[in-house]
Amino acid sequence: MGDTHDATRPTARPAKGLADVVAASTAISDIDGHAGRLSYRGYDIHDLAGRTSFEEVAYLLQRGGLPTREQLAGYTAELAAARQAPTPTVDAVLPAVAARCAPMEALRTLVSTLSADDPDAADSGPEANNRKAVRLVAQLPVLVARYQAARSGGTLPAADPAAGTAAVFLAQITGRPADPVAVAALDECLVLHADHTMNASTFAARVCAATLSDLHSAVTAAIATLKGPLHGGANEAVMRVLRSLRGLIGDDLDALPETVDASVRQRLDRGEKLMGFGHRVYRGEDPRATHLRQMSRRLGELSGDPTYHLMSDRMERTVYDVKALRPNVDFYAASAYHALGIPTDLFTPVFAVSRMAGWTAHVLEQQLDNRLIRPDSEYVGPEKQSWVSIEER
Amino acid sequence: MGDTHDATRPTARPAKGLADVVAASTAISDIDGHAGRLSYRGYDIHDLAGRTSFEEVAYLLQRGGLPTREQLAGYTAELAAARQAPTPTVDAVLPAVAARCAPMEALRTLVSTLSADDPDAADSGPEANNRKAVRLVAQLPVLVARYQAARSGGTLPAADPAAGTAAVFLAQITGRPADPVAVAALDECLVLHADHTMNASTFAARVCAATLSDLHSAVTAAIATLKGPLHGGANEAVMRVLRSLRGLIGDDLDALPETVDASVRQRLDRGEKLMGFGHRVYRGEDPRATHLRQMSRRLGELSGDPTYHLMSDRMERTVYDVKALRPNVDFYAASAYHALGIPTDLFTPVFAVSRMAGWTAHVLEQQLDNRLIRPDSEYVGPEKQSWVSIEER
Repeated sequence: MGDTHDATRPTARPAKGLADVVAASTAISDIDGHAGRLSYRGYDIHDLAGRTSFEEVAYLLQRGGLPTREQLAGYTAELAAARQAPTPTVDAVLPAVAARCAPMEALRTLVSTLSADDPDAADSGPEANNRKAVRLVAQLPVLVARYQAARSGGTLPAADPAAGTAAVFLAQITGRPADPVAVAALDECLVLHADHTMNASTFAARVCAATLSDLHSAVTAAIATLKGPLHGGANEAVMRVLRSLRGLIGDDLDALPETVDASVRQRLDRGEKLMGFGHRVYRGEDPRATHLRQMSRRLGELSGDPTYHLMSDRMERTVYDVKALRPNVDFYAASAYHALGIPTDLFTPVFAVSRMAGWTAHVLEQQLDNRLIRPDSEYVGPEKQSWVSIEER
Repeated sequence: MGDTHDATRPTARPAKGLADVVAASTAISDIDGHAGRLSYRGYDIHDLAGRTSFEEVAYLLQRGGLPTREQLAGYTAELAAARQAPTPTVDAVLPAVAARCAPMEALRTLVSTLSADDPDAADSGPEANNRKAVRLVAQLPVLVARYQAARSGGTLPAADPAAGTAAVFLAQITGRPADPVAVAALDECLVLHADHTMNASTFAARVCAATLSDLHSAVTAAIATLKGPLHGGANEAVMRVLRSLRGLIGDDLDALPETVDASVRQRLDRGEKLMGFGHRVYRGEDPRATHLRQMSRRLGELSGDPTYHLMSDRMERTVYDVKALRPNVDFYAASAYHALGIPTDLFTPVFAVSRMAGWTAHVLEQQLDNRLIRPDSEYVGPEKQSWVSIEER
């Protein structure tokens, strides 16, 4: 290999998966993988979770600082207006999409369709991008709820104009008034998932935005990327495992430890990847898992069925004993979302509802100091081939 | 900066735009930027252009070798069947999208919608991916033509089942039987644009596919990315410049050199980027431009209006004299597509029709030896911030 290549061409081995390659500068979020620290614009996630609303965090990510009361009132008014804004193109497209598409497949199409209904679609200047970014944060949960209502034949409960994102969303997707404890828990989940540096979907959004494509294109690329089971799809995969274990255990909690252990060992023996465990960046505990573990326990107790949390807890211990892997953000999100009454196949859409705050912030940042993202590749195919006509092949 | 960061964290400066970073290994295409050489699986683009059909090249990219006559017959039969396959979800969505969306915006939604009509949508195994890859190559030109017919109130001419991609597409978007010279030219354009290593849209497709998201998601991300004016949108931008010059020159060809030169110098003085010139990878002539320049001249003469080619030719000379920049693939594609009767706002969709062969090949390759693509970032935001409640901000 290689000796027929020009010596001036890149000869470096590829950084497979771009692991440890610094692809961009960002002021939006930071991870210290060794210390297990995640911060949004300098604020530690432990300081934000549980005492700052998703709206404050979305403002922080998109606009650079935590809002004052007046700033937050203006921002939530923008969000409320965007929830009610007419979407004639989405209206026309939604019935067919809801009838025939799985949730993330549907969201990919519906978010792409939103651009046609956006008054700033053709303007990618900083001010128009700011307005579109707010609207997208408001509109994505409405799209998920409209999809859920359409596919289940229900009607969409009207949004309380005074309520926040978590309250409106939970009421709309479950079809019943949301309990304040559940709203607070979902709000905290949205805060915890809102940004995470150069994760794959955010990176896809930046690659797209760096061609100076528009914000709707970039977040459509992000949703397409989040859909993958190695990224956003992991929380659903965790829930499917928990459900199958629940079927085996039934109400016999004495059988729980043995059943969980046997399942973990069997999957590891088969060489299966354990979804919800391990992370490329964190060496210690994923700081988001710390909060989601507590939430999973609390919500399990409140729901009257702690089994999903108990199975998760046992699984965490066993996986750590056998493989020394720790749970990531997806693991306890599964039992927490389940306790909130969120359908399993909407777990990844809920992740998207939160991450929209980060995606939009990253696109705004990328386009303020842009360079096309265009890496090199290492060629490993056949050397010079002689062309022959099809008659002679 | 940096002294409050843990010393074990990445301290490298970012490779802005990932320039010169080797992001992946690929056996699909290779560029030698110094020699001005582009090859698809070892075959020099100069050997392929003009004597190998787009279908043979799509087969080469997706399946690894040039087809025999039997293999090509099987492949073109798959393409013909896919052109006629029912697309009920697209049928339901198309009218609203065609009425309200610009071409690349529409394509982004329509390609995303195609998954709902694909029998293999839920299967991302290698064999299903191969079938979906063929269908996408067949379906994208049909989507462009259906969009064009819907927005212009025309009806879609039926596809000749014996005709190739270029012939069917040209007849369907222009609404008249295609001239053999024009078909051969478009076929050559499709060959020249079919792949180009880690360009931004292909890289976006691989970032998406590396989460093990599905093929339709990956090509939707690619279309969203190609839409950007620094990528696929460049050929349309070139055409807009040519059109405005044509308006100034009219039929006074004696005024052409001076008018073109003044326009180039004015735009450079204003600090504008000249679309269609320069390339991150090629140091000498872009080998695709060599073919497109000849084609632009030939088609201009045949069309009876050589002005667009003459303006392009003059612009190339002036830009080289002033800035030492050479034309890239987008520059002569503009006057060539225009001579073929392709509406200017369908230039980027035509690029997508061709590049679909490369995108799908790269996704198949990525998923055969996958690792999540998840780079690092350099944090440049504020250091540790103390949280205060909203009442105290």
